[in-house]
Amino acid sequence: MAICHHQPQFAVSSSSFPFTTNLSNKSHLHLPSSFRCNLSIASILEPEPVYTSVKSFAPATVANLGPGFDFLGCAVDGIGDYVTLKVDPQVHPGDISITDITGTGNSAKKLSKDPMWNCAGIAAISVMKMLNIRSVGLSLSLEKGLPLGSGLGSSAASAAAAAIAVNEIFGGKLPALDLVMAGLESEAKVSGYHADNIAPAIMGGFVLVRSYDPLELIPLKFPVEKNLCFVLVNPEFEAPTKKMRAALPTEITMSHHIWNSSQAGALVAAVLQGDLIGFGKALSADKIVEPRRAPLIPGMDGVKKAALAAGAYGCTISGAGPTAVAVTDDEEKGRKIGEKMVEAFMAEGNLKAVAMVKKLDRVGARLVSQR
Amino acid sequence: MAICHHQPQFAVSSSSFPFTTNLSNKSHLHLPSSFRCNLSIASILEPEPVYTSVKSFAPATVANLGPGFDFLGCAVDGIGDYVTLKVDPQVHPGDISITDITGTGNSAKKLSKDPMWNCAGIAAISVMKMLNIRSVGLSLSLEKGLPLGSGLGSSAASAAAAAIAVNEIFGGKLPALDLVMAGLESEAKVSGYHADNIAPAIMGGFVLVRSYDPLELIPLKFPVEKNLCFVLVNPEFEAPTKKMRAALPTEITMSHHIWNSSQAGALVAAVLQGDLIGFGKALSADKIVEPRRAPLIPGMDGVKKAALAAGAYGCTISGAGPTAVAVTDDEEKGRKIGEKMVEAFMAEGNLKAVAMVKKLDRVGARLVSQR
Repeated sequence: MAICHHQPQFAVSSSSFPFTTNLSNKSHLHLPSSFRCNLSIASILEPEPVYTSVKSFAPATVANLGPGFDFLGCAVDGIGDYVTLKVDPQVHPGDISITDITGTGNSAKKLSKDPMWNCAGIAAISVMKMLNIRSVGLSLSLEKGLPLGSGLGSSAASAAAAAIAVNEIFGGKLPALDLVMAGLESEAKVSGYHADNIAPAIMGGFVLVRSYDPLELIPLKFPVEKNLCFVLVNPEFEAPTKKMRAALPTEITMSHHIWNSSQAGALVAAVLQGDLIGFGKALSADKIVEPRRAPLIPGMDGVKKAALAAGAYGCTISGAGPTAVAVTDDEEKGRKIGEKMVEAFMAEGNLKAVAMVKKLDRVGARLVSQR
Repeated sequence: MAICHHQPQFAVSSSSFPFTTNLSNKSHLHLPSSFRCNLSIASILEPEPVYTSVKSFAPATVANLGPGFDFLGCAVDGIGDYVTLKVDPQVHPGDISITDITGTGNSAKKLSKDPMWNCAGIAAISVMKMLNIRSVGLSLSLEKGLPLGSGLGSSAASAAAAAIAVNEIFGGKLPALDLVMAGLESEAKVSGYHADNIAPAIMGGFVLVRSYDPLELIPLKFPVEKNLCFVLVNPEFEAPTKKMRAALPTEITMSHHIWNSSQAGALVAAVLQGDLIGFGKALSADKIVEPRRAPLIPGMDGVKKAALAAGAYGCTISGAGPTAVAVTDDEEKGRKIGEKMVEAFMAEGNLKAVAMVKKLDRVGARLVSQR
């Protein structure tokens, strides 16, 4: 066996799972663009499965976050996708088979069971390649908890759940950054080359995507003693990512750039300082993307006003929509805010909508059972 | 005497000096645009001087900070302007007289002694108005430690030193935010309506200017246990703010906007996390302003390369230039980096330059003596 079998596009750092770093202050996850071979176990030996079956969960994510457009996302707890992964002698060694896709709503029907065209499948294959799996076949069952095209990181949740399941069934050799790379490959094929959903889906909390080449992620720790609740209001309306992306301006004025950059800085400061008022203000303050996209979601402007009037600290579009996201510090307050937002979607957009109140997920993708 | 004598453009909050806030988490300084009368002592009674003479210092500041263009600045210790302020019976009550301007270089000769046309004078008058001073005349002596038009916040340092001197000679009634407002009035007249020098000159450390209407400032605390040194290299070259501002693009592509916004977020995160490597990277990563301005400063590109090659974590233009600023964590390292930058200014720009290594100033404008 050769010393180093890695695909050149992946570098497996010798640091351990989940969120380790090469830097002394542990605030960065860093991956150089050049190929590195650290002679880690994963890069030399094909690992053996340590479980026969695992079940994993990956949370929904809210990306874009107003002025954090395209580089900042966070994970929300209690809603997401599940993957059950089994060592399966019926599957050709080195391959993966998707046996089952279940879930409410439109998700299960619309998704392909061909692993090459399924976000969970693509991420799983990518992790298997990184781990150099050639002797074991796997079967995967996907349970969608998230609707497609809702702006809640549905594809990222499937990819993250699959990536962590494959990694963990073989002993958790890969660090989080590699799993994000695997998920990014999936996202690139399914919904665009962006890491602001997949990174928090895997790592939990808030993650800032500093660069793609090399991929550098900065976890932003929201203080543990503070509560942060997201009010997620999902209307019955399809807002495809591509259409929402086409609505973006190609050129931006200097004054809007400075404004949004300062709000991005304020947003990051508010996360790290646990400042909910500042967070809400910055979240609501986007002058570039939200003004273009909100008119494409019937009632969105009214929903935002209703959220703020009901006491939300801030409100914007989640991801590329159509879900609206508002923030507060208390679940009961969140429910009341959600009611007002649902009413506004009906009153101003003639759309039925469902509200959920979810806390910040600080863990990210994880195993929920193994045997 | 009427209940409330404030000028409508100023709101004197009831919070105490120096960096208090209306918000619970104390991370914001907030000033509503509407007129508020809090019935504070300052707003009702003209305070009496508590000293006959004070001497104040305000530090140099580095604004723009790469992707922090126009909204983020920080103070550097050990270099700045001094103001000596005296209760002077020879001066008409309620007025201020500038008796003396001293200092090395071009500063002293170029500045007007008319307080209405001098940055220290304008800020002093503004604070006197806020305090409702009508019975006492003051004389002011300005000692310039900073050269004009160097990109080190020269006008802000004078304004900050004057503002704090007036406030302190009358017992320090006004909070920092009001002093920033006074300084901003001075900056608007002298170098443009921007608070990214005057806010850190008064408050110390890093300050993010979140908005102007209302003025909202977010102090960003760099961890006290970490060292941050600035290598400031000032070439013999005049780069007027107006010319440098004219070089800015009016329209920005979406991709550059997203890049710079993410770097702005990373910069803020690095400050709060005390991550010098991340700070340096973000500082160096501006794709919008620096590429337009650097070519106007002979040798600047080479100076940046020399700084990074010599081990600086990052390097950019300070303010509107021509000073180059590099960052490191050690004074001795800083001196070596500075030597290389001075050499590069000569080799690549044919400019003589002087290097200084200064630490982050965490205090801001302060009294150095009083009697």
